Amino acid sequence: MIDHYAVLEKNLIAVDCVIFGYNISDKELKLLLIKRKFEPEYGKWSLPGGFVKRGESVLGAACRVLYQLTGLKDVYMEQSSAWGDVNRDTGGRVITISHFALINTYKLDPVMIEASSAHWRSISRIPKLIFDHKKIVDKAHRQLIDRIKVKPVGFELLPEKFTLVQLQDLYEAIYQRTIDKRNFRKKIISMNLLEKLDEKEKETSKKGAFYYRFIPQRYEDFKRQGFYFNLDVQ
Amino acid sequence: MIDHYAVLEKNLIAVDCVIFGYNISDKELKLLLIKRKFEPEYGKWSLPGGFVKRGESVLGAACRVLYQLTGLKDVYMEQSSAWGDVNRDTGGRVITISHFALINTYKLDPVMIEASSAHWRSISRIPKLIFDHKKIVDKAHRQLIDRIKVKPVGFELLPEKFTLVQLQDLYEAIYQRTIDKRNFRKKIISMNLLEKLDEKEKETSKKGAFYYRFIPQRYEDFKRQGFYFNLDVQ
Repeated sequence: MIDHYAVLEKNLIAVDCVIFGYNISDKELKLLLIKRKFEPEYGKWSLPGGFVKRGESVLGAACRVLYQLTGLKDVYMEQSSAWGDVNRDTGGRVITISHFALINTYKLDPVMIEASSAHWRSISRIPKLIFDHKKIVDKAHRQLIDRIKVKPVGFELLPEKFTLVQLQDLYEAIYQRTIDKRNFRKKIISMNLLEKLDEKEKETSKKGAFYYRFIPQRYEDFKRQGFYFNLDVQ
Repeated sequence: MIDHYAVLEKNLIAVDCVIFGYNISDKELKLLLIKRKFEPEYGKWSLPGGFVKRGESVLGAACRVLYQLTGLKDVYMEQSSAWGDVNRDTGGRVITISHFALINTYKLDPVMIEASSAHWRSISRIPKLIFDHKKIVDKAHRQLIDRIKVKPVGFELLPEKFTLVQLQDLYEAIYQRTIDKRNFRKKIISMNLLEKLDEKEKETSKKGAFYYRFIPQRYEDFKRQGFYFNLDVQ
């Protein structure tokens, strides 16, 4: 028997991670970037990434890169796209598979981030990135925008309890535009996925605003009954 | 200077094509499958695929596979997903990047399809496929369902002129369920993307049904003005 696979050309396979971060006080969608530590493009701004190792799945490689940089596991991670142009990497033929992750930045250990020489940059002020990394970021950002309209993944970026203003701030930070407050509230409340708590946030206004909590179990129950999450507000 | 890329492990990269076909007389979403011509899994049902060659982009490889099988170029082709589990291919470590293509099957040369030993199978009656190909098909199908709600890609599967019944038949074939006729018509007409022709289809009813034509240029104009295509009908 001829081994049809043995004679074929092999390629380097990498993963690149678009790590989105948010916290409710900044109200800014941020991106975790590193300065590259090897040639080509030594010292330039880059997405965190790495090569897929033997015995490691592609998703496993992306999770490893994220863990090494942030110390976090169990993070929301989604495959974004494969990038396969022949000359995309000036160091050689590398096909990369980009992923995006969502991190509530208050969960992070600042010492670890400091040690890894990673830096948070606002999505609206991204420095020049190597290779096709800007395109990779733009695509992941568009996918995140689409995703939060139809899936409750935005809550990954919020603390357990949040006000409706804080939820709207998050959506506006991701969309990079304002949205209609009345419609937004009407839509999120009508889905009946939030529990109103008997507790108020009082730092930002005298009157205070009630805290809410997202109920994942209710979302799962509703989904089984054919419910669609929809928070697409102009 | 050390070449950091030279010492790294390389992998086989493949593409697999989920080729969806449709024609208005069958009213069935179909999938183009082949019987595999090499080991492992010789003779079993498989998606058409191939390995990415030197000097060829990933998208280029997917287009080559499609062209060799169908003789068609300029076909709607979209990247679907990367599949990177370690043991997904029993012949060795292969990372594959799946794509889906949309073909109006009346454009096909039946002799060419016959010669390539490819076969159309209804999406509702897919035979057992090798490796993770069933999962690859399911994901592409879900993506197609999502796509036709928000982008006018469904027209790729229709002839230049079609009736509203034929358009609804297509959506129902992709969704694999019936949809509400009144809402569907109201939504598609209100978007003002179709031109009503002065000509009727008279084969399926005595009274006849007017033909319509999708106007791509108008869609592009509307998009620039902030319009969103939306044909999400329950």
